[in-house]
Amino acid sequence: MFQSFSETSSPETGPARLAALRSVIAAEGLDGYIVPRADLYQGEYVAPRDERLAWLTGFTGSAGWCVVLGDQAGVFVDGRYRVQVRAQVADVFTPVDWPEVSLAAWIAERLVQGRVGLDPWLVTPTQWREIERGLGAVTLVRRPSPIDALWQDRPAPPMGRVFEQPVELAGEAREAKIARLAAGLGPAQAAVITLPDSLAWLLNIRGADIPRNPVAHGLGILHAGGSVDLFIAPAKIADIDLGPAVRVHPFEAFEAALTGLEGPVRLDPGSAPLAVADALASAGVAIIEAEDPCILPKACKNAVELAGTRAAHLRDAAAMVRFLAWLDAEAPGGGLTEIDVVKRLEAERRATNALRDISFDTISGAGPHGAIVHYRVTERSNWRVAPGQLLLVDSGGQYVDGTTDITRTVAVGDIGQEEKDAFTRVLKGMIAISMLRFPRGMAGRDIDALARVALWQAGLDYGHGTGHGVGSYLCVHEGPARISRQGTVAFAAGMILSNEPGFYRDGAYGIRIENLIAVEDAPALPGQTVPAMLRFETLTWVPIDRRLIVPALLTEAERAWLNDYHAAVLAQVGPLVEGAARDWLRQACASL
Amino acid sequence: MFQSFSETSSPETGPARLAALRSVIAAEGLDGYIVPRADLYQGEYVAPRDERLAWLTGFTGSAGWCVVLGDQAGVFVDGRYRVQVRAQVADVFTPVDWPEVSLAAWIAERLVQGRVGLDPWLVTPTQWREIERGLGAVTLVRRPSPIDALWQDRPAPPMGRVFEQPVELAGEAREAKIARLAAGLGPAQAAVITLPDSLAWLLNIRGADIPRNPVAHGLGILHAGGSVDLFIAPAKIADIDLGPAVRVHPFEAFEAALTGLEGPVRLDPGSAPLAVADALASAGVAIIEAEDPCILPKACKNAVELAGTRAAHLRDAAAMVRFLAWLDAEAPGGGLTEIDVVKRLEAERRATNALRDISFDTISGAGPHGAIVHYRVTERSNWRVAPGQLLLVDSGGQYVDGTTDITRTVAVGDIGQEEKDAFTRVLKGMIAISMLRFPRGMAGRDIDALARVALWQAGLDYGHGTGHGVGSYLCVHEGPARISRQGTVAFAAGMILSNEPGFYRDGAYGIRIENLIAVEDAPALPGQTVPAMLRFETLTWVPIDRRLIVPALLTEAERAWLNDYHAAVLAQVGPLVEGAARDWLRQACASL
Repeated sequence: MFQSFSETSSPETGPARLAALRSVIAAEGLDGYIVPRADLYQGEYVAPRDERLAWLTGFTGSAGWCVVLGDQAGVFVDGRYRVQVRAQVADVFTPVDWPEVSLAAWIAERLVQGRVGLDPWLVTPTQWREIERGLGAVTLVRRPSPIDALWQDRPAPPMGRVFEQPVELAGEAREAKIARLAAGLGPAQAAVITLPDSLAWLLNIRGADIPRNPVAHGLGILHAGGSVDLFIAPAKIADIDLGPAVRVHPFEAFEAALTGLEGPVRLDPGSAPLAVADALASAGVAIIEAEDPCILPKACKNAVELAGTRAAHLRDAAAMVRFLAWLDAEAPGGGLTEIDVVKRLEAERRATNALRDISFDTISGAGPHGAIVHYRVTERSNWRVAPGQLLLVDSGGQYVDGTTDITRTVAVGDIGQEEKDAFTRVLKGMIAISMLRFPRGMAGRDIDALARVALWQAGLDYGHGTGHGVGSYLCVHEGPARISRQGTVAFAAGMILSNEPGFYRDGAYGIRIENLIAVEDAPALPGQTVPAMLRFETLTWVPIDRRLIVPALLTEAERAWLNDYHAAVLAQVGPLVEGAARDWLRQACASL
Repeated sequence: MFQSFSETSSPETGPARLAALRSVIAAEGLDGYIVPRADLYQGEYVAPRDERLAWLTGFTGSAGWCVVLGDQAGVFVDGRYRVQVRAQVADVFTPVDWPEVSLAAWIAERLVQGRVGLDPWLVTPTQWREIERGLGAVTLVRRPSPIDALWQDRPAPPMGRVFEQPVELAGEAREAKIARLAAGLGPAQAAVITLPDSLAWLLNIRGADIPRNPVAHGLGILHAGGSVDLFIAPAKIADIDLGPAVRVHPFEAFEAALTGLEGPVRLDPGSAPLAVADALASAGVAIIEAEDPCILPKACKNAVELAGTRAAHLRDAAAMVRFLAWLDAEAPGGGLTEIDVVKRLEAERRATNALRDISFDTISGAGPHGAIVHYRVTERSNWRVAPGQLLLVDSGGQYVDGTTDITRTVAVGDIGQEEKDAFTRVLKGMIAISMLRFPRGMAGRDIDALARVALWQAGLDYGHGTGHGVGSYLCVHEGPARISRQGTVAFAAGMILSNEPGFYRDGAYGIRIENLIAVEDAPALPGQTVPAMLRFETLTWVPIDRRLIVPALLTEAERAWLNDYHAAVLAQVGPLVEGAARDWLRQACASL
């Protein structure tokens, strides 16, 4: 089983560790120290040895900071974690609403002057500058994390074996990718690649260093001449031959290699560690600040990757259908818990014999738990799914040919009219994005409202974006495009995104409906005047609970979309399931 | 008659004037000179004496620049004017696609080094910096416009009499406005007000110095102590008493007053002349760059202004209905020209006995002329409105209680299915904005796509924003909010905007449907979870041509909106018209 249900917080260890850290800080002549949740790879998941923030504070969320001053220690967490943090940290820590309150503003309010330390490997140049800008007379200084020495039983670095993503699945040989990106470097002689999924994509490798994301910890330098230096623990990569364009070095050789570069060197100030920029600058190497060159090409999946993701989605859909059929048979009796639901779903995905990992911890939220957007069930929070409740299940799988992410909200027993009305409005938003055609050049912020209008009309909304990018057997949260008010990157063919509007009534229920979609060129229509248009191909093929739909709220076009969708689900997934699951699927896909 | 139909371009005078300007430039030791269309007030209209760009080049558009170098002269115009400029300028001028090509880039490509002049009274600090940034080794230098001396018969400054906008129409006394804005200046001791509509709003005055916009040319300084210095030609303001909070000075005293200010002084770098910033800087006065403090309060109309605009719109609607009834009776015979249409519409508005001006030159475009978004009919372009054509009429009136702006596209004779399909899609977009409720905090770019989706689905779109702000007996184009991808200012109650999606088939026809709308607080709905929502009140009450609607393309909600709208038109405007117009209105408002 990939998912665990344990409580991982340990608030009781915080006070002693905080005291120990304060001693080191004082001994180093500092007035404060900033502990980020991030590791040097700036991703959503970190290895156990990089859980510095959790070690110190007990807080286990996927983003946050602790600022330790002489008499106060603020734990900065965003809206997702404001309830969780209070349960996880001891009262020597003060939760702070971030980013509403910035680290710098909080520090500057408490220190007139002084020096605050921060590890340059754990922060990007952009983050450093933003903190520094707001600090007033306080000075931000580079200091390696004292936690690494204080942490007695600190875990070893992950040593997951690296394996190839064969060109039959990647769709483009690593030599071709390297040559293509090298040719696009412009005036830069090299680019430093620090994001593990960028490196994985560029080299057609996958790894096992962190949960949920099949990436390897390592660093790379892409040379304009068309080669890559890869810095990685040799034992991890002993099995595979990366060919003549890739030179493999021990991880420890990275810093020396940086200082030997001929500039200018391209560096992404939004994702690379500040320490990399420092090393280049101290060696006199000119830096060109620009986005990691892998990000856009990685986001635009090629035909082979898209074929792979379609296959993965059908496989995943069959598992979801078997799961939903079981759920519909069992849940109304009232005997299932949220954890039972997670276990059964993971078992169905495992039964495909193709599951490499789940793509994130399954969210299984019954009734009021459904309203906690990032709810993760634990042994302690687990409760029975009661008849009359909505059950929100958000889950996904990592398969070698694609990454899935799907949310279905299902009725357990009889559901009230209010929930059905809201569900139908969420569905209208999901369909609006699904049916959309739009001119090239549009970005997420141009279309986000289309998923919300039906909710707005009833005074409702949801407090998250409508969709995020998704990788190809890579991270389930992938940049740079997204469907949200913050989405400024224009959509391009091949991008895979989620389409997941929702509605949450605090303390009562949560609704979310999520399909993955891929951006594709829209064939021109007769009389079309827009030079080039895009649309979304639907990738996810799993029934949407018809019992929760108020047909009168749908337009004819929406009803037609839904009936066509369900007909396509039955046609494609029907042959993949048998017996009771097939019977269930047939009625779940009936025309509305 | 306010509108004229003459050709105002004179390409034949350009070459000699350009040669004369080049002599002056060379004599002054310059390598080039930049002539903006703007005057010191940076508005859409300039006085005849400020038509420097037209005097030099012949180009009469409302925005543009000429860059004169030794051997080339570029006329920079935007997308609206690319056809027009070719007809208006002699071939010694080279049209340049602006802003795609920037002034600086064009200059830097042609001059390796050298000095280019620009009048600091005719350019803002923001514009100056943007040009300077791109010039490379070329230096931008401040030089008064040589055209003012070369221009032998240059018209005198406009001397329109200033009149009061009484508090019964303005809704807030000038003393109250001055005190309110003065209290909000923060650290600034004064703010320089250079926008005529800002000054008009702040002082509850209107003027007659330029066509279409009832503003007076003058400059102001708002003091934190709660008073205003107004610099204006004394003869213009002799009739009225502005009370103790306003000191009136001759226009020429402005510069000396600037240098006598105690700083810091607030200045809008996006609208004030660079020369103002220069004068302050050279006197050692600290500048705080911030938006003109009148802009946001002016945009948020108070209850009295909204009541006034409602009255103005009903009055204007009655004129429009009489006009449309006449048009429907006359046009199918094929005897009307575009100019006949303009004249009749202006006559109907004049017949209200309340018209102070038209709010812009009426666009009357039949058939292919309808596809020219900013078409202005002249004696030369004028043609007969032929049966089978769409006629697009975009017009508005300036009344003391409000400014109107309305577009209706009407069928003349039998219209093809393609046009009806497109018209219905434009209408769907217009209705989508009209019906919208949305959370506080949204800006134009969040909702612009809602007006386009129905067109996008058919491969269609329009190349302009969906709506602009509108003043209260002030400019028909008013900032800061707008409904477009560029609209970043959050909507606030009281803002008046246009809602005008369209569709244009080049060389064939144009469609636009425009109502004005006002932002208002939306009453909370049962179960509402969004803390505060806004919606739009419709201000314009004139029938939309039902003959052009394909009912099957409308949803039930859209059809209901339209029928409710027409019922409200009949109920409100019916009592204001008589005879044939009333009969026409009754059938035009029939349920669909």
